[in-house]
Amino acid sequence: MAASILVVGSVAFDSVKTPFGQADEILGGSATHFSIAASYFAPVRLVAVVGTDFGDAYLETFRKHKIDANGLTFAEGRTFRWAGEYSFDLNERRTLDTQLNVFEKFAPVIPETYRESEYVFLGNIDPDLQLNVLEQIKKPRLVACDTMNFWIEGKLESLKRTLGRVDILIINDSETRQLAGVANLVKAAQKIMSLGPKTLIVKRGEYGVLMFHGASIFAAPAFPLEDVYDPTGAGDTFAGGFMGAVARDGEINERSIRRGIIFGSVMASFNVEKFGVERVTNLTRREIEDRFRQFKALTHFEEL
Amino acid sequence: MAASILVVGSVAFDSVKTPFGQADEILGGSATHFSIAASYFAPVRLVAVVGTDFGDAYLETFRKHKIDANGLTFAEGRTFRWAGEYSFDLNERRTLDTQLNVFEKFAPVIPETYRESEYVFLGNIDPDLQLNVLEQIKKPRLVACDTMNFWIEGKLESLKRTLGRVDILIINDSETRQLAGVANLVKAAQKIMSLGPKTLIVKRGEYGVLMFHGASIFAAPAFPLEDVYDPTGAGDTFAGGFMGAVARDGEINERSIRRGIIFGSVMASFNVEKFGVERVTNLTRREIEDRFRQFKALTHFEEL
Repeated sequence: MAASILVVGSVAFDSVKTPFGQADEILGGSATHFSIAASYFAPVRLVAVVGTDFGDAYLETFRKHKIDANGLTFAEGRTFRWAGEYSFDLNERRTLDTQLNVFEKFAPVIPETYRESEYVFLGNIDPDLQLNVLEQIKKPRLVACDTMNFWIEGKLESLKRTLGRVDILIINDSETRQLAGVANLVKAAQKIMSLGPKTLIVKRGEYGVLMFHGASIFAAPAFPLEDVYDPTGAGDTFAGGFMGAVARDGEINERSIRRGIIFGSVMASFNVEKFGVERVTNLTRREIEDRFRQFKALTHFEEL
Repeated sequence: MAASILVVGSVAFDSVKTPFGQADEILGGSATHFSIAASYFAPVRLVAVVGTDFGDAYLETFRKHKIDANGLTFAEGRTFRWAGEYSFDLNERRTLDTQLNVFEKFAPVIPETYRESEYVFLGNIDPDLQLNVLEQIKKPRLVACDTMNFWIEGKLESLKRTLGRVDILIINDSETRQLAGVANLVKAAQKIMSLGPKTLIVKRGEYGVLMFHGASIFAAPAFPLEDVYDPTGAGDTFAGGFMGAVARDGEINERSIRRGIIFGSVMASFNVEKFGVERVTNLTRREIEDRFRQFKALTHFEEL
């Protein structure tokens, strides 16, 4: 039995327009995408806040995946809402509306039973809150964390304090360049690792992932798909598959991290095939393993 | 002894500005970059045109690499000149000046001794000229070809005729989307393969390469470098390393094509480390093999 993963982040209702259709007020948010992806590999404990409009049908999705939602707070008010629209090639996203609602005052309290979690994922929230969460965890084995341009610009000192206690930072390429203040990714990665994280995972969307760990670099492609419907949540789904696979593995080393990155990429590739969490809530172990093998075939070449 | 490779393309003087410096009137052009990279793997036969200003010092570069330059025509006038400038992150390029000079009337005549070449690379020239070259070759085993937006827009029917006789098309991602008229790369690749080429190699700059062959896809990363000085010619250097490695291998199948793509990526990674051909003219077999092994380490992950 794999050790449990604690995730702190957002649960939201997303409204998404893509060239292939639209979906209104579907279940989304970083903690949602992360939890469901991770649940295929390890038990997940969810800390987030929702409003009184968050009905039992949504809780059923968490139950189906055996996600422990005791850390889900129901606050007076409405659940976080986000609306966005993608360009014709899905490479650009425009935010149409953001209503933080109950998420605005989110001050995560980690339930007593969660405090001995060994694997911790800090979704993209205020870095002061991320640090506060970490201080509530007794003895984490592995802490991974996400952030965004908003915190890099507005709360850099807080973010640096948090990074000092993080093992793995998982961000995209523009955030990497912005955080380091350097255009070259290899140099930027070295600079970011000097802030604390021993490992940096750079998400590059349709171009896959680069992982930096000391002087070692790992490059994983994204899975080339004929039909991409909705990229929303792909990054958090990646992080969920990644942390889940590492937790299931039990060892934390470059071998397990590389395999975790492939499992994360597998889960992200499923995520974009339908709107919201629709595809990732309906996967079989066989489908996941088949796509892992397809990644092997996708990247294989003979030794010298 | 590997079979010879025939390359038809441009030989030029390039003036390049990058954030790291500038170089004036250095040896460049598609056939130059291709030839030098390929020469590490197989004998190369060069067909191109230069002006009377093309001095012996430049010929010495070809001689050093045992490139057969009997197909190099000296025409009355000046050699093709190109000048360009790169953005701070090297991802965008602005052409400052193009003087076709003697290249404008380039009508490649293949010397009799070149006509039994088994491997043929058609650099980015008018597709009618590419087809004309092919008609002069007796019995090619493998024909690869490059093209660009200019020909896709202006000479699509000619280009399609040429593609009908090409085995491998090597173009970048925006050319792929433009040629197919489809944003999704997987769908675009299927459409392009229906025009003739059994294999499509899509160059994605710092993101590496995607290869399509029937239903099979191969993804190769670019080598992450701390210092990139000048991307000019990286695509042609890739093609040279690729064709050279396939010719040296002797077999033409997916195995040799995948390895060829890695050797092409190895050579392209050296090319960008200095201006023009400076780095690629001074490589050892050991350096090439070391970087090939580094590509293996860069992409390795354990089986399921």
